[in-house]
Amino acid sequence: MTRLLFPVSLLLLVLGSAFVHYRERPDFVMKNTDSDSVAFAKLYGSALVEGEAHDNLRYLCKNLPPRLSGSPGAAAAVEYTYQLLQSLNVDSVWKQPCMVPRWERGAKEQARIVDSKSAGNERMRICALGGSVATPEGGLIADVIEIRDFSQLELLGKKHIQGKIVFYNYSFKDELYSCFDQYGDAVKYRWAGPSMAEKMGAVGVLVRSMTNAIDTFPHTGVMRQDSLAAKIPAAAICTKDANRLSQLLKQEGRVQFYMNMNCKKYPDAPSFNVIGEIKGSEFPEEVIVFGGHLDAWDNGEGAHDDGAGIMQAIEILRLFKATGIRPKRTIRAVMWMNEENGGRGADAYANEAFRKNEKHIVAIESDAGGFSPRGFGMDMANEKKQKIQSWQKLFYPWGVYEFTRGGGGADIAPLKKLMGTPQIGLHPDSQRYFDYHHTANDIFENVNKRELHLGAGSMAALIFMIDKYGL
Amino acid sequence: MTRLLFPVSLLLLVLGSAFVHYRERPDFVMKNTDSDSVAFAKLYGSALVEGEAHDNLRYLCKNLPPRLSGSPGAAAAVEYTYQLLQSLNVDSVWKQPCMVPRWERGAKEQARIVDSKSAGNERMRICALGGSVATPEGGLIADVIEIRDFSQLELLGKKHIQGKIVFYNYSFKDELYSCFDQYGDAVKYRWAGPSMAEKMGAVGVLVRSMTNAIDTFPHTGVMRQDSLAAKIPAAAICTKDANRLSQLLKQEGRVQFYMNMNCKKYPDAPSFNVIGEIKGSEFPEEVIVFGGHLDAWDNGEGAHDDGAGIMQAIEILRLFKATGIRPKRTIRAVMWMNEENGGRGADAYANEAFRKNEKHIVAIESDAGGFSPRGFGMDMANEKKQKIQSWQKLFYPWGVYEFTRGGGGADIAPLKKLMGTPQIGLHPDSQRYFDYHHTANDIFENVNKRELHLGAGSMAALIFMIDKYGL
Repeated sequence: MTRLLFPVSLLLLVLGSAFVHYRERPDFVMKNTDSDSVAFAKLYGSALVEGEAHDNLRYLCKNLPPRLSGSPGAAAAVEYTYQLLQSLNVDSVWKQPCMVPRWERGAKEQARIVDSKSAGNERMRICALGGSVATPEGGLIADVIEIRDFSQLELLGKKHIQGKIVFYNYSFKDELYSCFDQYGDAVKYRWAGPSMAEKMGAVGVLVRSMTNAIDTFPHTGVMRQDSLAAKIPAAAICTKDANRLSQLLKQEGRVQFYMNMNCKKYPDAPSFNVIGEIKGSEFPEEVIVFGGHLDAWDNGEGAHDDGAGIMQAIEILRLFKATGIRPKRTIRAVMWMNEENGGRGADAYANEAFRKNEKHIVAIESDAGGFSPRGFGMDMANEKKQKIQSWQKLFYPWGVYEFTRGGGGADIAPLKKLMGTPQIGLHPDSQRYFDYHHTANDIFENVNKRELHLGAGSMAALIFMIDKYGL
Repeated sequence: MTRLLFPVSLLLLVLGSAFVHYRERPDFVMKNTDSDSVAFAKLYGSALVEGEAHDNLRYLCKNLPPRLSGSPGAAAAVEYTYQLLQSLNVDSVWKQPCMVPRWERGAKEQARIVDSKSAGNERMRICALGGSVATPEGGLIADVIEIRDFSQLELLGKKHIQGKIVFYNYSFKDELYSCFDQYGDAVKYRWAGPSMAEKMGAVGVLVRSMTNAIDTFPHTGVMRQDSLAAKIPAAAICTKDANRLSQLLKQEGRVQFYMNMNCKKYPDAPSFNVIGEIKGSEFPEEVIVFGGHLDAWDNGEGAHDDGAGIMQAIEILRLFKATGIRPKRTIRAVMWMNEENGGRGADAYANEAFRKNEKHIVAIESDAGGFSPRGFGMDMANEKKQKIQSWQKLFYPWGVYEFTRGGGGADIAPLKKLMGTPQIGLHPDSQRYFDYHHTANDIFENVNKRELHLGAGSMAALIFMIDKYGL
């Protein structure tokens, strides 16, 4: 494209000049309180022009070790974000203790096809699912049985499953638009598949990675960790190798598979949520809480999941300080610990809020990646939803106007359960999320600065409106 | 993110099951003509499940040489897309001749800071602007003068510019939401900057690259090539080096710069637009034309600009064939030649359409990258616009619902000029476009398969509606 396709729209000109005005006069602090558009231009403008989330995310991803709950990396991330919050000069910054499960992957997983008619010792790329037990020392060798879905597993029964490695080869449904719908449809095989296979006498489990991409990255993720947790080793296999394994099974009828994993569970360990807030000037007892999760899977940098969400939360506080917008209600950023394999931080936060009888008027979560924001999901009473939807035209110039799909998120769900808190989830474009999710490829380089900062601006603008008009 | 955030909405279930129905019965060909949603699910579904645009784009990018107009690569791209169209068994495939300008970059550009107080022979990353002349043999050494904007250039005047290399260091306005608005604001320095500097006696020109990213890729692009075309060498400098050069100028007052380029212009060469169409079953004389441009800058693979657009155009014809939807009107895919530095293919196409008195009811262009589609820009009479806007709810489940911003594109503009043809541009998310645009980084790996295919599905669905209901 050479020439200008989209002439600068009148609206953008208006907002642009509002922002320019603000920049030229840094002392221009919300004199024009009658205009929400001006506040939007200030918040989005500051995020886009001088936003710090991207730089902070770089530091988190590149300078700290992986931060799975209970690890030294998680402790370092607690310290780093605590310091970031303190540097903002907000009203309060604190750590909220919680106990977290501690699981370690151990040495890098090994897997291969055992010599067969048409394949030599072909290496297979797997990674242990979160919470998996280790294989027996020296590894496990067994026949693989490919399973299309749970009904086929039931049909085959113990007779065919006993002593085998169950290979769930259930694909994402490409024809669904939202990749979260695809994930929601398939993830039961990762969550419940291992324990279901164990019940049938399987000795190990391979789960096709949760992605629509065909590539070489295995996608880890948690499996059920309750009383039904599987006690056989379970791993994700990358989609490319899943296809290869399926092809070999078709060709040969019988394929033996070797897998070796050294995962280990340890006793629960102490950890923290990290919290910072600006006290409300009129209704300090009314809390608007927002954030993402601090922990991340250990195989990558957790850049989109959920480094993006926590750096956006910190950025939101910075935006209110930088633009001089003083909230009437208390706005609180929370970096929840242990979303990936337990949700203990979310529980600790909600339990304390309930015990103290804190009034949370809304909870907003960003845990769907640092991609271009498209809207907000909402889970709340209809009249509240309609109130937020009535603000849609303010968001429109900033590319955010999808206010109808479902909302919420794992870290704010306990607040709803305990206190009925209205739930909002930031909805970025979902198409690329599962290219990275829970893999070694979830790295800083795959997060675009403007997309990340637009997400922070969008949440800040929404918080501004809820603070100003209530909910 | 671990758990399911966005429960599968009812609408998606309906559409999903419509599509599943279609897949299970491949002979189910539009019996349900009363339901536009079913057609949408078929078109989008086929694009997402069995789309070929991404594979075709890989071949174009990885197996053919760069395809600037008049080059052997452009000729190879003509042949490749001609064959792709023929393989679809559409009603007609042809090449439409046009003469194109031919310019060659020559050996890789060299540039450096000439030894100064605080810098040694620091290498600078530049690339010649399209149409630039070469430097004198052995290169050019001159003092650099940094220019903020055209008014500063005028103010300084010949006295300060004479004999120097003018360095336009005008940044994208980060606070604007649409990156095309940022580009539209800044690109005059690339387009007109060189000739304006020449008028003032400059001996060379450096233009800060057209991007919001701070990185090491210089962004080429055309400068004016009419009677006012500059006859001094002009190059883009990457943003990182632009910042460095600016800093050095501040530190030292005086910086000498060396640049060496071997570009050359040749006489116009013969080339082609490539065209394929499905004849309308009821109104074959009414043409719905759509496409992108076949040529691309020589420094990268032209994956987003505009390999994406041409592969989407071919995919649209495939979608109509694969879903068995027979259009009433003629639908025509055009791969226009020479968008980047001349627009000769677009002129040839419009001129022939005008001469033959062809009735074009709409022209649709995809030339804004293979990113997640968000909407369509429209440039047409208001009642036509409103008709298209009334279809918005059908697009909603597919993430496409931005029907208000301006539209069109360079390759369809001559149709408007000559015949008043209504103009539509596919609008993908713009945030990442200028990370890649006209650089060595515009490569296949940066195009996401689902995003590309959603764009093709969106255009196909729009064409389906215009074909069915007229415009």
